[in-house]
Amino acid sequence: VPDPLLIVSNRGPLRFSRGADGELAAVRGGGGLVTALSALVAGRPVTWVASALSDDDVEVAAGGAHRDGLLSLRLIAHDREEYDRYYNVFANPTLWFIHHYLWGLALEPSVDRNVRLAWEAGYLPVNDRFAEVTAQELRAAGGRPAVMVHDYQLFMVPQGIRRRVPDALIHHFTHIPWPQADYWRVLPRDIRTAIHESMLACDVVGLHTPRYARTFMQCCDRFAEGAKIDLEAGEVEFQGRRILVRSYPISVDPDEFTRLAGSPEVEAAEPKVLDGLAERIILRVDRTDPSKNIVRGFAAFDLFLADHPEWLGRVTMLALLDPSRPEIPEYAEYMGAIQRAARAVNDRYYTGDWLPVDVRVSDNFPEAVAAYKHYDVLLVNAIFDGMNLIAKEAPLVNERDGVLILSENTGAHVELGEHALSVNPFDIQAQADAIHEALVMPQAERRRRIEAIRAHVRANDVESWIELQLRDLERVRVVA
Amino acid sequence: VPDPLLIVSNRGPLRFSRGADGELAAVRGGGGLVTALSALVAGRPVTWVASALSDDDVEVAAGGAHRDGLLSLRLIAHDREEYDRYYNVFANPTLWFIHHYLWGLALEPSVDRNVRLAWEAGYLPVNDRFAEVTAQELRAAGGRPAVMVHDYQLFMVPQGIRRRVPDALIHHFTHIPWPQADYWRVLPRDIRTAIHESMLACDVVGLHTPRYARTFMQCCDRFAEGAKIDLEAGEVEFQGRRILVRSYPISVDPDEFTRLAGSPEVEAAEPKVLDGLAERIILRVDRTDPSKNIVRGFAAFDLFLADHPEWLGRVTMLALLDPSRPEIPEYAEYMGAIQRAARAVNDRYYTGDWLPVDVRVSDNFPEAVAAYKHYDVLLVNAIFDGMNLIAKEAPLVNERDGVLILSENTGAHVELGEHALSVNPFDIQAQADAIHEALVMPQAERRRRIEAIRAHVRANDVESWIELQLRDLERVRVVA
Repeated sequence: VPDPLLIVSNRGPLRFSRGADGELAAVRGGGGLVTALSALVAGRPVTWVASALSDDDVEVAAGGAHRDGLLSLRLIAHDREEYDRYYNVFANPTLWFIHHYLWGLALEPSVDRNVRLAWEAGYLPVNDRFAEVTAQELRAAGGRPAVMVHDYQLFMVPQGIRRRVPDALIHHFTHIPWPQADYWRVLPRDIRTAIHESMLACDVVGLHTPRYARTFMQCCDRFAEGAKIDLEAGEVEFQGRRILVRSYPISVDPDEFTRLAGSPEVEAAEPKVLDGLAERIILRVDRTDPSKNIVRGFAAFDLFLADHPEWLGRVTMLALLDPSRPEIPEYAEYMGAIQRAARAVNDRYYTGDWLPVDVRVSDNFPEAVAAYKHYDVLLVNAIFDGMNLIAKEAPLVNERDGVLILSENTGAHVELGEHALSVNPFDIQAQADAIHEALVMPQAERRRRIEAIRAHVRANDVESWIELQLRDLERVRVVA
Repeated sequence: VPDPLLIVSNRGPLRFSRGADGELAAVRGGGGLVTALSALVAGRPVTWVASALSDDDVEVAAGGAHRDGLLSLRLIAHDREEYDRYYNVFANPTLWFIHHYLWGLALEPSVDRNVRLAWEAGYLPVNDRFAEVTAQELRAAGGRPAVMVHDYQLFMVPQGIRRRVPDALIHHFTHIPWPQADYWRVLPRDIRTAIHESMLACDVVGLHTPRYARTFMQCCDRFAEGAKIDLEAGEVEFQGRRILVRSYPISVDPDEFTRLAGSPEVEAAEPKVLDGLAERIILRVDRTDPSKNIVRGFAAFDLFLADHPEWLGRVTMLALLDPSRPEIPEYAEYMGAIQRAARAVNDRYYTGDWLPVDVRVSDNFPEAVAAYKHYDVLLVNAIFDGMNLIAKEAPLVNERDGVLILSENTGAHVELGEHALSVNPFDIQAQADAIHEALVMPQAERRRRIEAIRAHVRANDVESWIELQLRDLERVRVVA
């Protein structure tokens, strides 16, 4: 039996809701992180600490741990206002916009009472509650199980655990880019210092790419007083402890996508997805997040149509958009900008029987996979993106030897860039040119590229992402 | 006699205009760069290459070099449209906004035909013309005079000179911050590579602070293929050459400010400047540039008044604002935001006999110096700022033992931060608190701080800034 594990993430693997029979029932939660981590649970005792996100979750939280096979799920009920400040002000947009360089700094953000409260009466207490519950679980478990803390919502958790359980074996993985030091200066000194020092309470700090890992260490050099960094070795020394800083590019489960592609749900979704589209399809699938660069994608398509009128009526840009964080003003406004940009293209080329840009706002995974099967061009032009799993998932099931256009600022670009048409996300002319190049690329060349992507993803799947991390954790355990 | 020198900058030390007698007459140009460099001309033969900026300048340019004592001024006439693309699109806002992290990347900028043209049919040909004229002057001068190229408008000049005069002794000084590599990625690969490779055609690269110098080297590591950097030594090896990367914090001429403070022009301006102000004065003097953080300064003053109503009616925030680059949309819009923010404060506290925020839009240096004499608090809260000379100038002549509030993101903060009230420019609550702290600070403490600033500026004046650079250039000359 493998060693037990503790996973700590804001969103848990199960959500609860009351069924028709009035009983609370568990439903598997969504999101790439949960999907990736769920693979961990297979065949291993796991205690998972997460936020209670609904009233039904809160009811389950009150009853203690929920057990389901080898999984023990410990949900934490938060004060509603505190959680709102933590999630909808500090984690998003404040941190998210820093990690992706999205602030228009001339006017935003201002660190005022709102942001201070979000830190002091939101992020800190919520993180501390996570640390406290995790420490309880650690003590109850006995031995020295590894704790894996996930993502930017929980930067202050490692230090909270370390204070309570000094010999804990702590790992943190950040699923978004690590921004360079100058941009961290948007946050006041006490906050940026606290975050970096908490991260150095880990034994292992994981990020997607070598560049993010390097940047993290350079930030520690700047912000954590007394930290000594060794960029070559990937190590930081801080307060008498040694922290490994490693890159582990997250991936997907290829078999799951093969299975999904042939599933009745996806096959049923295909006619609906294809309805109304032109013969050739440029696909994008994204949350409506300003980092995803949806507006410039439409502008690039517009330029492409102007440069290549022979394609008028023959190609649709299909945007499957999952509405994201509408409670946050910056996100609500970005949704407006998306709609405006799509209309601008459609109005220009209106003919009555061809919709150039087809925006579909919904969160429907079978439809996304159905669309994956039929794209000719997959546009992933994110401004900055920690990894971008769409770029790894969609080629696995595509049936048209579709071409991937990939932003050089995605984590996925490190692995897949050479097989994709690589673009600068700000360069809409380059994106327009790439769209044309993709549409006229010979089939043999398209086939070669998509096969290379598939081979890479199959050889570097989510299981290997997990195994590499567990192996490093075991090494640390043995040394310590 | 000291060695001859070539100075290359977009703006020259003299501008020409036709006097009442119909003759072209030279007038000393404005701007901190010109003021600083003019000290070089004293007692040394200098050839200065600059753009012809007016029709009268163009007429002078047509007549070859203009001689004035030891100065030989060579003005370059540019094509008007080419100059506009170079200056008002590529240098500003594109480069300026990158160097100061000002873009709201979710929507701006897009690299499109406009930016491409600005590079290919603006920045490149203008820079090439500078390099060509400089090479002509170098050949005419004979020997091996040092060439000092200035600022972000002329990044492509060093390479242009090196190609034409392989053994030239080339220096470049950047007067604004050097942004970290991720943010350079706003520009397509070919452009960001070209800029860094051109800079490595220098013998010496100068920046204001050790941090900028370090960042420049790290960017070379990322963008100039084959560059080897040595952060400790401050050296880059590239294409068989060795480039020194050094920090030289620019400064002012203290004697000039002492003289100015007692001049009739400034004394005449004082009553006008003080007219209508409350007993205590918070002063800011800035170009209306989004990097200067004028809007957040007003918001901080608003917070201060809300927190400390005992100061209502007793203090004025005086903003002397020099209108900047109104042809550029981002600047025009920022001017709107400034006016709106000032009105918001004034409307809230309107009483009829006290104007809380007094915005005066004008470019009047004697008035600025007059205001320097009378501030109680000097607010320099720039978002990012290469140096900020106001923070060095104003304390020299202040008569109230005024307190400097200084953004931690200015170059000046490296030298003066310990004597100032240091603030994070995004943290408007911290700025409001600093305003209060400054206003209630005991006189002895204020005196101690302002004297320390003066002593530092006197010991590190503009002459030493120049001498340090010339000394490094001579060292390079001897070694090579």
